[in-house]
Order: sequence, then C-alpha cells, then structure tokens
Amino acid sequence: MSDKTNPGYFFEDFRLGQRLVHATPRTVTEGEVSLYVALTGSRFPLNSSDLFAGACGLEAAPLDDLLVFHLAFGKTVPDVSLNAVANLGYADCRFGVPVFPGDSLSTVSEVIGLKQASNGTTGVVYVRSHCVNQVGETVLAWIRWVLVNKRDAAAPAPEPVVPALPEAVPYGELVVPEGFEGAGYDCTLAGSLHLWEDYEPGERIDHVDAMTLEEAEHQLATRLYQNTAKVHFDQLAANANRFGRRIVYGGHVISIARALSFNGLANASRIAAINGGSHVAPTFAGHTLFAWSEVLDKAPLPGRDDLGVLRVRTVATKDRPCADFPDKGADGRPDPAVVLDLDYSVLMPRRA
Amino acid sequence: MSDKTNPGYFFEDFRLGQRLVHATPRTVTEGEVSLYVALTGSRFPLNSSDLFAGACGLEAAPLDDLLVFHLAFGKTVPDVSLNAVANLGYADCRFGVPVFPGDSLSTVSEVIGLKQASNGTTGVVYVRSHCVNQVGETVLAWIRWVLVNKRDAAAPAPEPVVPALPEAVPYGELVVPEGFEGAGYDCTLAGSLHLWEDYEPGERIDHVDAMTLEEAEHQLATRLYQNTAKVHFDQLAANANRFGRRIVYGGHVISIARALSFNGLANASRIAAINGGSHVAPTFAGHTLFAWSEVLDKAPLPGRDDLGVLRVRTVATKDRPCADFPDKGADGRPDPAVVLDLDYSVLMPRRA
Amino acid sequence: MSDKTNPGYFFEDFRLGQRLVHATPRTVTEGEVSLYVALTGSRFPLNSSDLFAGACGLEAAPLDDLLVFHLAFGKTVPDVSLNAVANLGYADCRFGVPVFPGDSLSTVSEVIGLKQASNGTTGVVYVRSHCVNQVGETVLAWIRWVLVNKRDAAAPAPEPVVPALPEAVPYGELVVPEGFEGAGYDCTLAGSLHLWEDYEPGERIDHVDAMTLEEAEHQLATRLYQNTAKVHFDQLAANANRFGRRIVYGGHVISIARALSFNGLANASRIAAINGGSHVAPTFAGHTLFAWSEVLDKAPLPGRDDLGVLRVRTVATKDRPCADFPDKGADGRPDPAVVLDLDYSVLMPRRA
Repeated sequence: MSDKTNPGYFFEDFRLGQRLVHATPRTVTEGEVSLYVALTGSRFPLNSSDLFAGACGLEAAPLDDLLVFHLAFGKTVPDVSLNAVANLGYADCRFGVPVFPGDSLSTVSEVIGLKQASNGTTGVVYVRSHCVNQVGETVLAWIRWVLVNKRDAAAPAPEPVVPALPEAVPYGELVVPEGFEGAGYDCTLAGSLHLWEDYEPGERIDHVDAMTLEEAEHQLATRLYQNTAKVHFDQLAANANRFGRRIVYGGHVISIARALSFNGLANASRIAAINGGSHVAPTFAGHTLFAWSEVLDKAPLPGRDDLGVLRVRTVATKDRPCADFPDKGADGRPDPAVVLDLDYSVLMPRRA
Repeated sequence: MSDKTNPGYFFEDFRLGQRLVHATPRTVTEGEVSLYVALTGSRFPLNSSDLFAGACGLEAAPLDDLLVFHLAFGKTVPDVSLNAVANLGYADCRFGVPVFPGDSLSTVSEVIGLKQASNGTTGVVYVRSHCVNQVGETVLAWIRWVLVNKRDAAAPAPEPVVPALPEAVPYGELVVPEGFEGAGYDCTLAGSLHLWEDYEPGERIDHVDAMTLEEAEHQLATRLYQNTAKVHFDQLAANANRFGRRIVYGGHVISIARALSFNGLANASRIAAINGGSHVAPTFAGHTLFAWSEVLDKAPLPGRDDLGVLRVRTVATKDRPCADFPDKGADGRPDPAVVLDLDYSVLMPRRA
Repeated sequence: MSDKTNPGYFFEDFRLGQRLVHATPRTVTEGEVSLYVALTGSRFPLNSSDLFAGACGLEAAPLDDLLVFHLAFGKTVPDVSLNAVANLGYADCRFGVPVFPGDSLSTVSEVIGLKQASNGTTGVVYVRSHCVNQVGETVLAWIRWVLVNKRDAAAPAPEPVVPALPEAVPYGELVVPEGFEGAGYDCTLAGSLHLWEDYEPGERIDHVDAMTLEEAEHQLATRLYQNTAKVHFDQLAANANRFGRRIVYGGHVISIARALSFNGLANASRIAAINGGSHVAPTFAGHTLFAWSEVLDKAPLPGRDDLGVLRVRTVATKDRPCADFPDKGADGRPDPAVVLDLDYSVLMPRRA
C-alpha cells in the first residue's frame, strides 16, 4: 500500500485532547443551495427567499441548517470515521451563526473521550467538532462517537474517559440568528398558519407525503458534502456485504425526513439544536421514505416574545406510511420499518 | 389526520374571484440555471451566455423561459391541484419581464371559473395565476384548469362559470424583453443560420435527437421547482396505480422537448407565449423522448423589423423517432407514441 | 430531412486551415462548480475554497481544470464529431489562465490535418481548439483527432496532412496561474503532507477508493457540458448497438478517476497539461470505477522553487480494484478491466 494514501486513524492513534484539523475547506455558494432543494424538495421559506428572510431581519436567505450540518460533518469523515465500524450517535449539536452563500467553512475536532471495547479489537472515540466560517464564528458544534477498529489488537488500551453527554441542549443556550425577528414572519407565504402557540407536547403529526430514493440522488448528495465514506459509493464492495447494496448516507435520510416534515411543521423555521438521534436501520435506493413527528416539549425562548422553542422527535420509515405512527413496541424494539429517530429543537415564530 | 398538514382545496372550497396567495417564495440563482442545463441539455444561447445576451441588449443571460414557468407553476400545486384528478389544460400563458439570477419570485392565483361535473363528485376549477418578481413586475401569467375532487358530494354546486379561453395570445400582446434587439444576435455563435424569414407555415421539422429519462432526473427537476405533486415521487403509492410507475412531471417533458427542438429551431430565442397544450399520455423513467415541430403561423412583430413571431406546435413522442412526424390519425386520435402536443409562440431574430 | 437541423461536418466538408467557430458560448457560474463537486466528489482544495485559493495568491477558487476541459470540449462536438466513428486521441492539451465563476467561455477550432482512410469511406480530421474567456485569454488549447464518415465515398481525397503531435507538453511551457504561489499552500487543510519532493519516477499508487456510476449521473454531467453526442443519451438507439447500453462520456470517466486520485495525489493542485490519453474501453452505468497512478517523471519548474511538475499516468478500471496495478500484459494489450489510460502533467507545491 502506498504511503501516500490516507489510512485514516485507528483507535490507538487517537489521544485524549488531540486536535484534528480536517481537510477540504469549502466556500459554499448558491449552487449548493439549489442542489439541496433539488435533492430534498425543501420548502422552508426562510431558506428559499431572500425577500422572506429579509422581512424576518436576516441579510439574505441562509443555507438550510441541515445542509450546513452535512457540509461540516463530511469533513470529519476522512479523519474520524474512515476505519469506523459504526457511527454510534451524536449529541449536543448546536447551530450557531447562519451560513450565507459566499461563506467559507472549515471544521476542527477534539478528542474528548476514548474507551476500548472489551474484545480489545475496537474502541469508542468521542469527538467534539466545530465548524467555523471565514471570520471564525462557530456555525455548528457537535459531539459524535464512533466505534473504530484498532490497527493492532495488542496496542495498550488508553485510560477510559467517557464524556458527559447532555440529554438535550438547554433552551437558554440556543442561538437565535442575529437580527432574526419572528414579527416579520409571513405565515401565508410560509404556507401554514400554525404557530408555536398551536402545538402541544404529546401532539403527533403524520407528515403524509413520501419520497422514493434513487442511487444517483444519494450519491450526488453525499458527494456534494464531500463525504467520502466508501459504503455509499462502491457497489462492487457492497455486493459482498450483508445487504448487497450501497447504504444511503444517514444525513440524506435526515434531510428527506425534514423536507417531508414541512407538511405539518412548516413554520419550524430554524433547527437550533439536534439533541440526539439514531439511524435505526439502513436505507437503500428504492425505498420510499415517510415521516411522522411528535412534539416532545415546548418552551418560550428566554427574553423573547416573538419566538418559541419546540422540541420535536421525527421518525422516518421506509416503505410504510405513518398514519398510525409506527414506533417502538412494548418490548422497546422499533417497528421494523423505522429507519430514523431524531430528537431536535426548532425555533418557531409566536403569534403577535 | 393532524390539523397541521395541508389538506389542499376541494372543489367546494373554491369561490369565484377567490385570491390564492401561494406559499414558498423563491430567490432564483445561478444554481437553478446550472441545474436546468444539466437536467435538459438546453443550448439556447440567450440563456447560456451573459456576453451573448449582452450583445442582444439584455443586462445578463435571463433564466430559460420554461425554468421560470416550472418555478411559478410549482407554487400553485399545494393550493390548486393537491386534490386534482386531472390537469385538464392551460391557456393564455404570457411570459413577461425576463428573470435574472437574484430575482425573487412569488405567485398569486385568482379563481376565474367553476363548473361542477355532472356526477356531482368533482368539478372543474379555472385559475389565472400571476408570478411576479421582487418589484412586482409580472414575469408570467397563465390560465390553467383542473378537475378537482369534492370533499363532500352533497355540497351544493356553484353557479357554473366558464371563462372565455383565447385560442392564442395575440401577437401584438407578446412581451419583448426591454432592450432586446435582434440586431445584436450572432447566428454563428447561436449555432444556426436559419432566421425568421427561413421558416414557413406548414413546415415540419424532425428534431432528430433523443433523450432517455431517468427517475433521479425527473425527481431532481420536480423538486427543484418545489412542485410537490405526490405522483412524481412516491413509488410505493405508484405500485398500486394503473401504471405501477411514478409519473414524470409533464413540465419536465416540455423542457426536454424544447431542448431537443434546438436542433432545427435554434434561433427560437424566447418563448413569448404558450397558447395551449396537452399531456397526451403519461411518461415514465426509461422512456426515450423524441420531438418534431410544425410551424403553425408566422408574423412580423408589430413595430419591429428585428424580430418576428413563429407560432409553433411541438409534438414529443416516447420510444419512437419522429422522422415521419407521428401525429393524429384519421380518427383524430393521437399516435400512441405521442406524449405531448404543445402550441406556443416564439420570438425569432429577423435577417438584418 | 429538414434543412434546419444540423447535419454536422462530413470528412469532405473539412479543409486544411478551416476555422470553426463553435456555438453555445457559456457563462460559467458557481452552479457549475457545485454540480461538479456533486457529480465527482472532488476535494482538491484549490477548487473548493476561496480562502485556500486566496492564501495561494489567487483571487478566488478557480473552476476545476477538468470542468473547464469538458465545457470547452462539449462545444466542439456538433461541428467536429457529430459524424465521427471514433475519437482517436488528444494531445498537446494546455491549460491556460484559470477560469472563475462569472467568466464567459467560447471555443474556436482550426483544421490542422486531414487524411482519408484507405477504404475511402472515412477520414481522420485533426483539429486544434482554443477556448477563450471574455477578454480573449486562452483558458485551454488542445489537439484532437477523430475518424469521420464521408457523406459521399466518391468525393476526392484531400492531400494527406498529418500534423506533428508532441509526445508531451514541454515543462517550460506549462502555464502557472498568475499570482499562484506554492508558499501559501496549507498541506494540513489540503489533507496530505506529501509534496513534490516526496514523489519519485516509477512510483505507483493505488488510489483505493471506488465510485459506482449511474445513468442519471453521467447524463447530468454530459448535459451540463452541453455535449450533445447521441451515444450518451439515447437508450432506444443503444438497444440496437453492440453494447445495448448508453456509453458514458469518456470525460466523466476522466473526472471520476481524477477525483479518486485525490487519495494519493491530494496536492496535485493543478492539471497544467494533458499529454495524451486513451479511452481503452467503454464504460457503462453500473460499473464501479477504480484508479491507480504511476509517476512518469518529475522536474522542477523553470525559475520557481515553490512548485514542481509531476508527469503522471492515471489508469482507471471498471469493476476491479487496483491494488495490483492492472496494466498492459506482455503482449501489449491492456488488462480487460482498464477503461482509461491518461498521461498528464500537474503542478505540485514544493517544500519550503
């Protein structure tokens, strides 16, 4: 094997406190924005129209929050998860200043936890990543943890350190984009009259619509994010895996679920945090995705009467409509159709 | 069913004179322009090069007329045709001021006709829609009529009103983009020396080229237009329909036919009006599209000697070359390969 | 057949010294840049980030060199190769001033050689093409030669003229983008610490990664380049050819191979020349591409100590990993998995 190709980090290559400066800085443009609409069909108005965003106090339409997430996340793959066996989870994901076309993004991670597995051949690595813009403002910060192979099973185990993972980002710490005012939000143009006051904890919404996935689509999306994880692109290798299929990047599933959720959560304008989430089962091209959501909690936003927070759980399924809200059974196991279970907090305008 | 999802309008929800402010305003960018080229292969030079457009007196290359049509049309779907049984037709479609990257579009419709069907369970709704830019200039206005389900068959029928539909947009009312001068048009760079003088009514042109459609392509196109009609995206539901397939958005077929028509109508620079059209049969991924055109009429443009009008009929077929111009038979029924029959008026430069 | 459609040039239509002004000028934008990333997954940092490019002395991130190649090349197809039997080769391909979003490109070719084939029904046409930007600077110049059908086998043969084809573009004639300084190049952000000093002639690199091709992807790419060659788009015609498949545009294969080569040649920042290349076998959707490279030569760049030249040969295969460098056998015939064999020269930063 050439010494010029990237071998990725193995478990024993990570050190507590280690700083990983990820490659492939990216200037994001209107091209990304258009492709994201074409790939997901997203209709959230704040991200669709400069006029609409301007009326809400923003300088222009910011990039979709999840587009920022995918671009930021993609950069971490060659360092953090090239030798990963599994992406175990993410937490404490906070969206910072909005990203506009022309901004340049780069991502840095810090190793905040390490725990070798009992079998001695793998270990869990916890990293906190920061994605910043060209003036160093944080646009996204998040923790993820992955199960990574060891190069050499005989390598000594590090002192186990497992970071505290918040159950959710505290509402008081959610970032409201500078200048953003719910007062300028036009519900008619947004496509829904349902505002923060209209949602109640426990409420469940079937998002009704559906989207069938194609190989070309998820590959285009994943390459757009410069995410190089081989499982999404290499059918020859996939022929030998237990699925026989390329696996759809889980982030594409999140984006499709979010786009479907517009029908019922149209005014969930801004994802302010992802509290946690799980890719319950792999998704493949040909699957038709559906989604439903549950309002987990609602709260006013401290110091503001124009915006409130909804904590939402969105569940996506494959090849199964969600009119009856397919979920975990009495045994705690998810319905076999469920592919995604995402817990996030959104900012929603309040009635004036 | 949640009260938060959009149920769409049923026939009895429409009122004569009702004004529908459609959601999802959109700032269009160079991203849309690039995607449109990638999705259609369009080569019309006015839309391809700022230099070429500038030589013709425009400030920059405007968006392809059909791209504007699709973006404007897509916004009407959630209100007008979510409960539609069929799109019956469109008429009096007038292209106004050109759209440039950076413009922000929004669409409003007015109900101009209502006629309950004799079976009492459906009715025809006629709407006139206007798409305007950020300064309120009309970029597109058109009439369409759709057959819409009633929610409740017992709901009383409205007084029937059927609007007068012009057979064609009068040539004298066609909009020439401000500043546009045929004198600056460079035929060599356009790729064809055939100008307005060279076409004659009755002339038929086989456009020779062909384009095979893929699921990912029509889905990307239709999502780019934020058109949410379920039949284009949901294979699980399609498994139960009489085709067993997702239906390609008819507008994508129009765009492919227009792109194919470049080979024979390269200097048909600007679609000024769509007089009428019919999606004769559904199109599915895997179909290979061909097209031929007939010059229905030609006329000078009142007050101009640099531009003339051609009224053109373009017919698209699936899986059948058009060397013999497949058309209606003696019984008036279209050739089974025909999928599109479009009547439109174009502006074409005249010889200096 | 209509006199309005483009019949293309047949062999007897070409004249030595003839100048072909190609149609479809194009203003390139950020939209093309984003699509190119989505279609290829390219991660070369100079083309990804304005900040990175700025640190290297450029005004912004230039378009990927191969994106420029494809856009320039596409324009020549309707004139040069519409009636081609085969694309025989290209040589002396020199990349000039970088292309930035907003530039407008057009291409002109000159016939520099003609040689009728012995069977009298075809002939080889050699053209030298220049693609220029809006101020007339050359962004790309190259020679290609194609085997073209005669319209009339009885047409007299021209005096045979075969131009001298350089084996490679001399290193001293390679264009360094104005202002480009290797000193500002950040290896960490680029993703690789391996610079010009670290590569040696004869060194071979397996690029490890793989990419499976889809019909929608190669069609989107080829249409984006406004390349109209029918074999890429018409499945109905393909059903009757010996492959039964649409053929992937060879340029898309080059781009995928280049994107794969990032893993091992990450700092091969700029393609300065393509010395020659051969599409050894056709590629179809469903094939998984792999690539390996060999360093053919290295040289300092005259007058510079911040940049060096590597002459590289990249070989792409279909459905076959490249760990053992599949190549020509003892009989000189390529391994049956090889689809591309490309010889090119890159500029790579030197260690300070």
